[in-house]
Amino acid sequence: MLALHGLLLFAHGARDVQWAAPFEAVAAQVKTRCPGTPVELAFLEFMLPTLAQASARLVDAGCNYIHVVPLFLGAGGHVRKDLPRLIDELRAQSPAVRWRLAPAIGENDAMVDAMASVAIATLNVV
Amino acid sequence: MLALHGLLLFAHGARDVQWAAPFEAVAAQVKTRCPGTPVELAFLEFMLPTLAQASARLVDAGCNYIHVVPLFLGAGGHVRKDLPRLIDELRAQSPAVRWRLAPAIGENDAMVDAMASVAIATLNVV
Repeated sequence: MLALHGLLLFAHGARDVQWAAPFEAVAAQVKTRCPGTPVELAFLEFMLPTLAQASARLVDAGCNYIHVVPLFLGAGGHVRKDLPRLIDELRAQSPAVRWRLAPAIGENDAMVDAMASVAIATLNVV
Repeated sequence: MLALHGLLLFAHGARDVQWAAPFEAVAAQVKTRCPGTPVELAFLEFMLPTLAQASARLVDAGCNYIHVVPLFLGAGGHVRKDLPRLIDELRAQSPAVRWRLAPAIGENDAMVDAMASVAIATLNVV
C-alpha cells in the first residue's frame, strides 16, 4: 500500500480569535512548502476543529501515517498527558493508521535559537 | 545618563518543572550572545520569579530601559490584557525606567518559519 503521510498541527486554542493567527500562518506555510501532504490544524480547547475532527479529515484523505506535532513551546500536562491520551483514542478508532507523536516544537534547538534571536532583536528596536 | 538595556523574557509557567526547559535555554542563549545585557526570565503563574520580582532585579542592576518579550506563540488575553496591566504597575513603581512591551514572539515571521520547518522535518523521521 502506498504510504500517505499527513501532518496534524496541534495548538492549545484561546478565546481570542487573533490568538490563532501564528498557527494558521504555520499551517499555510507547511501546505505551500509540502503541496502533496495533507495538513490540518487542530486545537485542544476554545477553538475548532478538535484533534478528533482534524484527524478524521486526514484519515478520510487516505493518510495511513499521521504525524501529530504539538505547537507548544513547553511540554507540560497538555503535551505529556492530555495529548497521548487523545492519540490513544484515535489509535483505537483507526488502528490501520500509524500515529506518531512528535516532541513539542519548543523543545527543538532551532526553535530555541529562533526565540533567542527574536528576543535579542527587540534590544535594537528602541 | 548611560543607557542600560535589560531584557525580561516572560513565559506562561506550568505545574510541570520540565515545562520551563526551552525558556531556560532561551535565557541562557541570550545571556551568552549578549554578555553585557542583564537578562531575566519571569512567569505569569505556577513558576517563579514573577514579572515583578524579575523586574526588580533588572532595576537593581541599573537598567533604565527594560524590554519585556512575551515568550508566547499566540497573543490572547495573557499577552493583550494581563501583561499590559502588569507593566502599568511596574511603570508606576519605577517611572524612571522606560518599559517597552514587544509583540508575542510567535507573531514574528522568523518564528512562523521555524515552526513550519520543525513541523516539516517530522515528516522525514519515520
